[in-house]
Amino acid sequence: MLNGLRAPVPPGALDLTGDAVRRRRALQRAMMGVLDAHRYEEAFPPSFEYEETFLAAGGPGTGERLIRFLDRDGRVLALRYDFTASIARLAATTFAAAPRPLRVAYTGKVYRQEPERGGRPRELLQVGAELIGDASLAADVEIVRLTLALARAAGLGEFQLNVGHIGVLAPGLAALEPGLRARVRRWIDRKDRESLGRALAEAPAAADALRTLPFVIGRRAAIEAARATAPAAAQPGLDRLLALDDALDAAERAHVVYDLGEVRGLEYYTGLHFELFVAGQGRGVGGGGRYDDLVGRYGAPAAAVGFALELDGIAEVAP
Amino acid sequence: MLNGLRAPVPPGALDLTGDAVRRRRALQRAMMGVLDAHRYEEAFPPSFEYEETFLAAGGPGTGERLIRFLDRDGRVLALRYDFTASIARLAATTFAAAPRPLRVAYTGKVYRQEPERGGRPRELLQVGAELIGDASLAADVEIVRLTLALARAAGLGEFQLNVGHIGVLAPGLAALEPGLRARVRRWIDRKDRESLGRALAEAPAAADALRTLPFVIGRRAAIEAARATAPAAAQPGLDRLLALDDALDAAERAHVVYDLGEVRGLEYYTGLHFELFVAGQGRGVGGGGRYDDLVGRYGAPAAAVGFALELDGIAEVAP
Repeated sequence: MLNGLRAPVPPGALDLTGDAVRRRRALQRAMMGVLDAHRYEEAFPPSFEYEETFLAAGGPGTGERLIRFLDRDGRVLALRYDFTASIARLAATTFAAAPRPLRVAYTGKVYRQEPERGGRPRELLQVGAELIGDASLAADVEIVRLTLALARAAGLGEFQLNVGHIGVLAPGLAALEPGLRARVRRWIDRKDRESLGRALAEAPAAADALRTLPFVIGRRAAIEAARATAPAAAQPGLDRLLALDDALDAAERAHVVYDLGEVRGLEYYTGLHFELFVAGQGRGVGGGGRYDDLVGRYGAPAAAVGFALELDGIAEVAP
Repeated sequence: MLNGLRAPVPPGALDLTGDAVRRRRALQRAMMGVLDAHRYEEAFPPSFEYEETFLAAGGPGTGERLIRFLDRDGRVLALRYDFTASIARLAATTFAAAPRPLRVAYTGKVYRQEPERGGRPRELLQVGAELIGDASLAADVEIVRLTLALARAAGLGEFQLNVGHIGVLAPGLAALEPGLRARVRRWIDRKDRESLGRALAEAPAAADALRTLPFVIGRRAAIEAARATAPAAAQPGLDRLLALDDALDAAERAHVVYDLGEVRGLEYYTGLHFELFVAGQGRGVGGGGRYDDLVGRYGAPAAAVGFALELDGIAEVAP
């Protein structure tokens, strides 16, 4: 019956046994324990939702990466693309009347179509948390702290959180017409200072700061130096990063690097955003940020900030 | 963007929060702990496989209940219909060279298309275990014991395991031509003694025992009484049930009822089979049995016995 199969499982399906399972379960237990201790209450959103739920949260690339199927009524469903969309939808529906702030934790798989057939996984195991209904700096600090606490709970020694703020580059980008803006973002993303300079030659003066701010990376001093010459429109974002830095303790600060050149997630994040890197793992192993516009797309506006970590990437390097 | 939605989640999608999540996690932890203590090693099979993997394991109804989607190469994939198929496939592929017996545990969701739109869940949370490569009575006893131990670990007070053996009715059913066999199975399933009698009026003598054996239900004495008059072909199955009964202790036996009238799962099970019932829950909350023909369908024949419990049904009645 199965003679026609070229492989026992479809490309990108996760088939794990033995130590690979034990490592993921240990990480999951340790991380969910930290979240529980901080009064984050676990939710189980469904494994599949209407595709609109995920499209409402995603950037332009989301559509191509959903794993979709037709429901019996012809509606298009999609496997869970990320938890944040489902938790935001929960906050605006099931939890519409619940007291704010809401603290929600989750763990499970997300499913993403891979653009290439390189055997890259189409299922990823995550742990994450969302803090909904709190626009304050304290909420940003809580989420950054929790992310660092989960990295420690995973037993990771060398790890680094690259932290930025959407408000630093957004004013400059907003001054560009859409076609140019897309090109400028691409050069910023690739850290290509020369192409960026050429692209900005025709840009209005309001975009001038895009020549330098995207290359600012470092500790508190780097942000203070950038602030001295940054345009007024970029100051609130920089101030928020400095206030975050003030709130962290020395042990936390040792793992934080400010990076103003991150332009992914611009459609989604509205303030603080960050990505976690771990020694030995080439790609980021999770991230998060503030997304004050998302919950409202499901019908009940609320400020929100959260993060999700990738247990597969962490399991490969955790002790 | 979401104005077109009649409901926030598709029918049958599981959207759980608060106590519903806590109860399921507590059950999962307690049950997986028991399985771990018995050296059952957890595996994570993929959330989706080629549909053939599930069709190879299922009876005639499986096809209609798979939740399918097309992969980018046009192959048909299906969400995990049950774990046993995936674990049997694992045993015959990844674990083909591993020493027997294999003891594998698992927990996670299974996905089933519901024939009616009655809001019945299309995702179900399970915990289960498979013992692969052991055809002995001891393996049957181990799996029955574990099922009872998990019910106890769930804190269930009143529960009952209805235990049968495929070999008791199979010889009688095999004596019928296929059309009559299907009708007879239906009357047995509905415990309709009168219609069954009419259907069997034209049947050969070898099917005579089908008039009485399907209605045998009780403790050891009921099996002994049935054995006294059962045809020779039904004796080995009855003997296996008596041997199982001998092996159980009094506390275990108190939860076991022998029921020879179960005809569901006939395409799948090859020996012992059972279903767990809990006070307060109208439907069964799990079951299992011996399926010595299944692993071979994935390329490496092996005797096997296992079970899976439904955490949603148990969570509704557990303390």
